[in-house]
Amino acid sequence: MFMREIELRGHIIDSLILPKVLDKILDMGGDYKILRFEIGKRKTDPSYAKILVIAKDENHLDKILCELKDLGAEISEIEEVELKPAERDMVLPDNFYSTTNHKTFIRFKGKWIEVENQKMDGVIVVYPEEMRAEVKTIRQVKKGDLIVVGHKGIRVIPPEKPREESLFEFMKSEASSEKPKITIIKKIAKEMYEIRERYRKSGKGGIVVVAGPAVIHTGARDALAKLIKMGYVQVLFSGNALATHDIEFDLFGTSLGVDIRTGKSVPGGHSHHLRAINEIMKAGSIKEAVEKGVVKSGIMYECVKNNVPYVLAGSIRDDGPLPDVITDVVEAQNKMREMLKGKEMVLMLSTMLHSIATGNLLPSWVKTVCVDISPAVVTKLMDRGSSQALGVVTDVGIFLIKLVEELEKLEGEYEGEGVVKERNRDNIKVKER
Amino acid sequence: MFMREIELRGHIIDSLILPKVLDKILDMGGDYKILRFEIGKRKTDPSYAKILVIAKDENHLDKILCELKDLGAEISEIEEVELKPAERDMVLPDNFYSTTNHKTFIRFKGKWIEVENQKMDGVIVVYPEEMRAEVKTIRQVKKGDLIVVGHKGIRVIPPEKPREESLFEFMKSEASSEKPKITIIKKIAKEMYEIRERYRKSGKGGIVVVAGPAVIHTGARDALAKLIKMGYVQVLFSGNALATHDIEFDLFGTSLGVDIRTGKSVPGGHSHHLRAINEIMKAGSIKEAVEKGVVKSGIMYECVKNNVPYVLAGSIRDDGPLPDVITDVVEAQNKMREMLKGKEMVLMLSTMLHSIATGNLLPSWVKTVCVDISPAVVTKLMDRGSSQALGVVTDVGIFLIKLVEELEKLEGEYEGEGVVKERNRDNIKVKER
Amino acid sequence: MFMREIELRGHIIDSLILPKVLDKILDMGGDYKILRFEIGKRKTDPSYAKILVIAKDENHLDKILCELKDLGAEISEIEEVELKPAERDMVLPDNFYSTTNHKTFIRFKGKWIEVENQKMDGVIVVYPEEMRAEVKTIRQVKKGDLIVVGHKGIRVIPPEKPREESLFEFMKSEASSEKPKITIIKKIAKEMYEIRERYRKSGKGGIVVVAGPAVIHTGARDALAKLIKMGYVQVLFSGNALATHDIEFDLFGTSLGVDIRTGKSVPGGHSHHLRAINEIMKAGSIKEAVEKGVVKSGIMYECVKNNVPYVLAGSIRDDGPLPDVITDVVEAQNKMREMLKGKEMVLMLSTMLHSIATGNLLPSWVKTVCVDISPAVVTKLMDRGSSQALGVVTDVGIFLIKLVEELEKLEGEYEGEGVVKERNRDNIKVKER
Amino acid sequence: MFMREIELRGHIIDSLILPKVLDKILDMGGDYKILRFEIGKRKTDPSYAKILVIAKDENHLDKILCELKDLGAEISEIEEVELKPAERDMVLPDNFYSTTNHKTFIRFKGKWIEVENQKMDGVIVVYPEEMRAEVKTIRQVKKGDLIVVGHKGIRVIPPEKPREESLFEFMKSEASSEKPKITIIKKIAKEMYEIRERYRKSGKGGIVVVAGPAVIHTGARDALAKLIKMGYVQVLFSGNALATHDIEFDLFGTSLGVDIRTGKSVPGGHSHHLRAINEIMKAGSIKEAVEKGVVKSGIMYECVKNNVPYVLAGSIRDDGPLPDVITDVVEAQNKMREMLKGKEMVLMLSTMLHSIATGNLLPSWVKTVCVDISPAVVTKLMDRGSSQALGVVTDVGIFLIKLVEELEKLEGEYEGEGVVKERNRDNIKVKER
Repeated sequence: MFMREIELRGHIIDSLILPKVLDKILDMGGDYKILRFEIGKRKTDPSYAKILVIAKDENHLDKILCELKDLGAEISEIEEVELKPAERDMVLPDNFYSTTNHKTFIRFKGKWIEVENQKMDGVIVVYPEEMRAEVKTIRQVKKGDLIVVGHKGIRVIPPEKPREESLFEFMKSEASSEKPKITIIKKIAKEMYEIRERYRKSGKGGIVVVAGPAVIHTGARDALAKLIKMGYVQVLFSGNALATHDIEFDLFGTSLGVDIRTGKSVPGGHSHHLRAINEIMKAGSIKEAVEKGVVKSGIMYECVKNNVPYVLAGSIRDDGPLPDVITDVVEAQNKMREMLKGKEMVLMLSTMLHSIATGNLLPSWVKTVCVDISPAVVTKLMDRGSSQALGVVTDVGIFLIKLVEELEKLEGEYEGEGVVKERNRDNIKVKER
Repeated sequence: MFMREIELRGHIIDSLILPKVLDKILDMGGDYKILRFEIGKRKTDPSYAKILVIAKDENHLDKILCELKDLGAEISEIEEVELKPAERDMVLPDNFYSTTNHKTFIRFKGKWIEVENQKMDGVIVVYPEEMRAEVKTIRQVKKGDLIVVGHKGIRVIPPEKPREESLFEFMKSEASSEKPKITIIKKIAKEMYEIRERYRKSGKGGIVVVAGPAVIHTGARDALAKLIKMGYVQVLFSGNALATHDIEFDLFGTSLGVDIRTGKSVPGGHSHHLRAINEIMKAGSIKEAVEKGVVKSGIMYECVKNNVPYVLAGSIRDDGPLPDVITDVVEAQNKMREMLKGKEMVLMLSTMLHSIATGNLLPSWVKTVCVDISPAVVTKLMDRGSSQALGVVTDVGIFLIKLVEELEKLEGEYEGEGVVKERNRDNIKVKER
Repeated sequence: MFMREIELRGHIIDSLILPKVLDKILDMGGDYKILRFEIGKRKTDPSYAKILVIAKDENHLDKILCELKDLGAEISEIEEVELKPAERDMVLPDNFYSTTNHKTFIRFKGKWIEVENQKMDGVIVVYPEEMRAEVKTIRQVKKGDLIVVGHKGIRVIPPEKPREESLFEFMKSEASSEKPKITIIKKIAKEMYEIRERYRKSGKGGIVVVAGPAVIHTGARDALAKLIKMGYVQVLFSGNALATHDIEFDLFGTSLGVDIRTGKSVPGGHSHHLRAINEIMKAGSIKEAVEKGVVKSGIMYECVKNNVPYVLAGSIRDDGPLPDVITDVVEAQNKMREMLKGKEMVLMLSTMLHSIATGNLLPSWVKTVCVDISPAVVTKLMDRGSSQALGVVTDVGIFLIKLVEELEKLEGEYEGEGVVKERNRDNIKVKER
Repeated sequence: MFMREIELRGHIIDSLILPKVLDKILDMGGDYKILRFEIGKRKTDPSYAKILVIAKDENHLDKILCELKDLGAEISEIEEVELKPAERDMVLPDNFYSTTNHKTFIRFKGKWIEVENQKMDGVIVVYPEEMRAEVKTIRQVKKGDLIVVGHKGIRVIPPEKPREESLFEFMKSEASSEKPKITIIKKIAKEMYEIRERYRKSGKGGIVVVAGPAVIHTGARDALAKLIKMGYVQVLFSGNALATHDIEFDLFGTSLGVDIRTGKSVPGGHSHHLRAINEIMKAGSIKEAVEKGVVKSGIMYECVKNNVPYVLAGSIRDDGPLPDVITDVVEAQNKMREMLKGKEMVLMLSTMLHSIATGNLLPSWVKTVCVDISPAVVTKLMDRGSSQALGVVTDVGIFLIKLVEELEKLEGEYEGEGVVKERNRDNIKVKER
């Protein structure tokens, strides 16, 4: 008989780990026997299960165990991770282990090592000398890299449902526009305020904003610019369109040729975005255009003025694109991944392409807020196994304006309560607001 | 040869009447010769065209002329309208004329009579004694009613493109969420303010609001209630769900069991709407519930308190429904049509069913604003041949809150300028606006 | 201390009953202690849990228990159900019990009685003499009806996840268009074939089709007519539009004035639907129009010819409507509920209004297939707690044509295999195909 | 007074050129006087208008004329085009002329020269020695290139409404799912058949297919592969996802880990797409993988086997990507534009990113068929000023399967009629079918 014991620990019932494990075994045509089961008697107690997995043959057993590991099961015997070198650049050994976006450990030389730069659909490369391991994408793999193969010596820690109440939903992907929006905006504002405060004190964490051109078209450009100025954006991810229309607005008062103040197309407006691109081409880059006084306001302006780094990633539908756009998509991905490190929250604003790209690069424990007017887009973005995701089906234009209003109110309140003042005394920089 | 002269007058080029007429003739396999053409030399001048329509046979000619009339063509010879009595209740003579939603005249006893109660897909009933004609629906037709048949003696006046700039679009059905919303909301507020002022002065015109339950779920209940209180709603069209959840909120603080202030379901909440219905059943009606102090706030409360009439039309998905709901749909249509008479604007808020029903009953010259988060719904509602329609793809919750803010600002401004104060003193009207 | 023991039985882990119960207790601010827990050692073994629920006060405990019951918890002490008479028609006693759509039992005079006519958002009326109980809607309640109040003596049996593989998803509401459609259509065909065979043998079960006018507009009218003729439809639910356009097509070859064969509008076509309604008004009803030879083909024709009952429910957006349309929505609901009794499957085709209305009337154990081109509609329809639901995001026109092709193939196959022939020998009627 | 005469010629009424011109003048605050107007007396006769445009000042006049030119107006006096050299690579002279996607001529050295490689949002570069002009994108501009500036000496020929009936709609952007699909598919099949026949005889024209991964997920992979084999695809545009999942299916029978035959996820399936990419990395390219026998079927296989060129354009959401993917988006655009030259039709299948990118590169006279299940996507794609566009809101999976069925039927028919046989005699290659 082909069988093996596995163990599950933690809040395995209400985080749905136990039901998922039993389900998976049955779905794959296996069987199980519960050997031991200790349920947490109170809500804070962890539970424990020891389960005997029964399969038809060795290969079947292997396949099942491989799946169970990604769900958080531990194989009771302690095994070492298996490694194989890459034979060529960008070529993996045949049975490479493909990563999830959950926290992952490998057992190497008798120790559990946490894998760095976690993201889904990558491979694990081990550096034996440094006793380090990290996730790489296939294009980053170099000849000789030691790649984890098979599924031995790997432990995946899927996110557990938070014990306390949370703004974020735990792995739920349904999105509806019929929610009380002002309530939700207030809560997001509060969360962002706290993250900014932590960031100001520690220089750690912070917020990544991923934004599409709808932000400009819907009249929320000034709101996003203000958000940057107020210190709520530590990195901006976007593309050619947002930057171009932001600068077009600065130069011509239009977005894609439409006057934002009247909502009407202006004559010659259809070429404004090309003229905006040409101005930046002349200056050399957005930064230079800001410094030369060509660009005087807006999202990109505030990024330059407030030293907020940005990645403008290219796409085949770009006009131009601007000189600042990274036209090679692999290079853009690498840059984005670099900048995501350690961030606490990602705010995705009306861009499916850039948001999915960001989602692909994120570990599952980063808080994600996704705002779009289309429920389908929100559902798609939420459905990536993030444990802390909040989808808001709403109009991004009015959303951002209301969000800034709430943040201003919040800052006023805390000022009133002396909290912000205290922060000032601590002499942590607040001047730039 | 089978031919006939027709004439076109007015702004027939930029209102697209001439292109449509020529198109229709060709599409139907006919041919034409332009006999005379005088184009308006300046933008305010009307144009004139005399066109010879050429067909294959008498029947073909008839069919083409019939279509051209609905596009605004006049047949040059003066003909009398043809009438036939209905043989039974709800049964029409075979070749009855089916109405458009445009202004229509009939030639009867040598005079042009304007048809009353215009709506699309009805029939024209003539009262010879009174020299009157009106549109009836098939179910309203009584035995002996004199129904217009064929297409002789009928003149349709399709809407012309307004000369001056307008908030409303002229027969355009595209809907996009990527528009500057605050700009649009400001303009709608201004339009509504002016309509309300006219209504206050003359008792004529006014605004119909058609609203769905998303208004409550998205947290805009208080905003709509305030709009009613401020005098911007002359009639409310809705269904069982809006009224039920409005009252549910008053009684339990929830909408479909969700606490609007926290966005979370409350225990037992799934039965709240039934409990709300039961309270109204006990009181006898919404009005009685308000008067007895059972219901103390909200949309329906403000309707009762401000004498704003409402039609709650039934649908097969209703729970309950409330005693105020008109469960017979034909009766509800009749009531709605009665209340629409003379209204200047219809504001449709997140309800496809009630908005389409209202659109079916409207003549083409009433201003229509349609707000929904789904572009498909907005497009569908705009696509009904209204000459003055504005589609806003946005979140109805935030929209209403912002609209009320803008209206308050506007009232404040006018107050500040003394305009509104004057109005108050004069106790009626103010010229300078 | 305020506490009470509850019990859970069955496949409470993988049907997610246990996680939901623990979750609910914590969400409501309660606490628990697991007193006993026996997990099914193998996949077919049921599990058992005895849990002590701990609350802050009596009222809090009551609220929690009330919620847990609807999730399937049994209160260990045996209690009798509590009843209160309705004081007036359509008025309920204050703390009436509001039903779920799950199978429900009440403890009455020492016995567990299964409640009949289960649907959600109703109340339970008990007939003591007959030892019977049934669900009624609020409008059906008569003065003196004995209504279940509170939550004592009630047992709800939520659906368990089926042990064997199934076409239908177990309580999952996500809908995607990116699925292999032909595969899914084949499976639906197989399920329908089996239901029809069972229905033919036993006269029990059968399929309800709920269809909207998109069926006609997308060119699938003949396919649905054929489905009826082939015996796959035991009841048809629809509205005025489907029936009108179906008859319009029979009389004029158009649907809403569009020639289905060319996809172009025909001259005068916009009045065809009114002319179709007028023909039925003249005949008196659809049945009479079929019998008089006025209507010679199509969906309604096949219903009449094959004695398939239909409910055409009115809505406020109806033109006409046809004499067969039930214009009172409460009467239409009652008729629909009557006809749903005992049916095995509901096939919902491109109509949100009629599908939601049907969903409201259904118990949770009826199989539901929902077909619509909009993912949002499919998600909304799936999200009603049905335990056996399948959402297909696709084009209803091509779907129906392919479904009929698959059913014909299937019948051919079984004929070939002698299965259908055998059935013939058994003398079960198959002639009418 | 600032005024200028313009002329309009052609079918300026029903192609809406005259109404648009008058509209634009008024919208821009100008005025006009009709100096001469000759309307085509019969449907085939062109019309003619001479219009005096009146503006406030020289600058205003300039702006208006600039807009009118893009609508097809000719300025009566004959002017030479104005040129200015680019001062640096990728930097344009300030008032460069930004192109439309309509056919364009420039007046250079007394001659009208047709501009090559027309696309929207480019600039015109003139080669005086060769008396040639072509459209370049801003990134293609080299120092010293002679760029057209201002708006003198430019003639734009907007598309006219076709006289005969056509499958394609003339500049209409509305999209509806409620159309008779089988009818439309038959017509598309006929159009494609004729284009292929023309292509086979002349080697000119042909069809470009732009396809997204939904083709695979919905089960239409084999249908698209067959379309390629049958000779209906001359170029394929797609991205990493389609190619990866196509090869994944060949190697593992799954698409994104889902078994297409059962519609269920398979164990370990989530890593299949990475494994597929790795196989191609090992082989070096898709072509080599096909030649080495690693890939044995599918879309990419048929492309290689039938010498159908493809462009796989990169995007930031790519995993991998495959070695064949062009990761630089500017390079990918250039390659796509090269391949679009002279093509007669573009078939866009369920990919917004690649379809918009292709639309950006297309002149307005290429026939475009756009298939997507979302009406919003179809509307967006249709809304690019193409004169011959057809939007089909349907399920791409079933669409492709039905399309291939229709094409096979069509080929059978023509075979039967001897048409295809004749073609065989002419010795034009038909073996591969």
